[in-house]
Amino acid sequence: MRAVALGGGQGLHATLSALRRITPDVTAVVTVADDGGSSGRLRRELGLLPPGDLRKALAALAGEEHELWRAVFQHRFGGTGALAGHAVGNLLLAGLLEVVPDPVTALEEAARLLGLRGRVLPMCTEPLDIEADVVGLDEDAAAVRRIRGQVAVATTPGQVQRIRLHTAGSPTSTPTACPAAVRAVLDADVVLLGPGSWFTSVLPHLLVPELHEALITTSAARIVVLNLVPQPGETAGFSPERHLDVLCEHAPRLRVDAVIADADSVSTPDRLRRAAESLGASMRLDGVASGEARERHDPKALAESLRDALAAVRR
Amino acid sequence: MRAVALGGGQGLHATLSALRRITPDVTAVVTVADDGGSSGRLRRELGLLPPGDLRKALAALAGEEHELWRAVFQHRFGGTGALAGHAVGNLLLAGLLEVVPDPVTALEEAARLLGLRGRVLPMCTEPLDIEADVVGLDEDAAAVRRIRGQVAVATTPGQVQRIRLHTAGSPTSTPTACPAAVRAVLDADVVLLGPGSWFTSVLPHLLVPELHEALITTSAARIVVLNLVPQPGETAGFSPERHLDVLCEHAPRLRVDAVIADADSVSTPDRLRRAAESLGASMRLDGVASGEARERHDPKALAESLRDALAAVRR
Repeated sequence: MRAVALGGGQGLHATLSALRRITPDVTAVVTVADDGGSSGRLRRELGLLPPGDLRKALAALAGEEHELWRAVFQHRFGGTGALAGHAVGNLLLAGLLEVVPDPVTALEEAARLLGLRGRVLPMCTEPLDIEADVVGLDEDAAAVRRIRGQVAVATTPGQVQRIRLHTAGSPTSTPTACPAAVRAVLDADVVLLGPGSWFTSVLPHLLVPELHEALITTSAARIVVLNLVPQPGETAGFSPERHLDVLCEHAPRLRVDAVIADADSVSTPDRLRRAAESLGASMRLDGVASGEARERHDPKALAESLRDALAAVRR
Repeated sequence: MRAVALGGGQGLHATLSALRRITPDVTAVVTVADDGGSSGRLRRELGLLPPGDLRKALAALAGEEHELWRAVFQHRFGGTGALAGHAVGNLLLAGLLEVVPDPVTALEEAARLLGLRGRVLPMCTEPLDIEADVVGLDEDAAAVRRIRGQVAVATTPGQVQRIRLHTAGSPTSTPTACPAAVRAVLDADVVLLGPGSWFTSVLPHLLVPELHEALITTSAARIVVLNLVPQPGETAGFSPERHLDVLCEHAPRLRVDAVIADADSVSTPDRLRRAAESLGASMRLDGVASGEARERHDPKALAESLRDALAAVRR
């Protein structure tokens, strides 16, 4: 079974960790709009794809017998110097991206080093900038402000209404999809959207025209995995159903087969069911959160839920 | 045939490139006293072994089918930011050295990545500081000044008379050899000293007691490869025979089997022959320089010369 997970950061790590329990053929399609932390510093300094989300996806799919390199990839330099906070894998990916002209080939080399089960692809081969219309930042509560940059959008105290995406440094451009990512979506048996920072990691894929189109036309089963908790900043106070509404606003033609939510995270299941149905999807409420804090998805439980959802879609 | 080359930097690169043409069993024993450039920055920031000379030795022995990783290792970030001038391989080695407690194991992992023919070992597993007695820096030409640090010693406008080595940050300590390096010297069939920065890359190995002793007691053939040109700074104005005198001053008990010099770089062959003979060595004058500038050793020509020297030693 060919599975594709779209996203970035911790959310994508969760779906990849679940999917690798179901199939060896997993492709991650990773957002490239990050401008914060180690990635943001590398991107500003070297003008490269921000490597952090790519690194996290590689780590999630690393082979068990490659634990040492996974640890080196994820290791961050400490101290107070010029390297403090940089992940070694980010620096290595930056080097690969400078030496190897094609980012897809560069990522294949990193994948080989980590004994990857599956593939990691950037959604676009050029770094992107994210821009959001945000309300609630002014005295006039309806005033819309334009906020630029992933960090600024993810942490805004206002309410994000809509996002736009363009090639970095070119505010009027439309981003071009990585052809291998489009192909992966078209050839997939199942495509996963979410969980993750909704506006800055999940929705960006829908704003790349070829990828948007591929998600609509693919014969793959489409499954949305909802977040366990609203994210402070960009989705503060968002209900689970509001996440689906926002998805629909950014991709009105997108049909979904199943929506997976954590049973304990949904306070109004009827509303969520209606929101899912309006996308064409059945709702699944499963226990997919992990540990005491229940802030992260449990890979094993999420894999179970995905297996069941896929079986139901196929019936 | 088990060959060991001791040194650092470009000189060690030359002997390793020559030796790999003769035998697959090459061990580099690398100086760890560098405090300049990318290595010096990493060493100061993270307190690690300076990785630059280790990286260059790894690159010299990298497998032909691993050219991409060799290129990534040797690639330096450009620009004007915090990473400018750092070699990617130095950053990766720094990450490995932080994650893997034993430097020998960390270097084995790097070696695997590069498909190494042979092995790269540090001469000591802790960073070292170099200190030199230098004359000619004051009006009183005989006044001796103590100069600290590899860069300071290598670039001094004075004349280096003697060097000392100690564990970084511990000026009264004696450095402890890496046991695997001592073992490699004892088990070798041939050991190479030089070419390279004489005081800061070649002689340091003789100032580590266990390594010094191993070089004296090993049954390996001992070959000294002289530099093609005096190095501005530490050996400005040094004749080839003066290099041997300095070697003898730092290791009076060391016997040598052969001294290889470039035929065009020796203006007083009789003097060099006498200096070689006083170490127990025969002198070989071969054409071992490369290209127009003749400032670097030609790996193929040096390999030929080494082969001939070894055949003569065995007779």
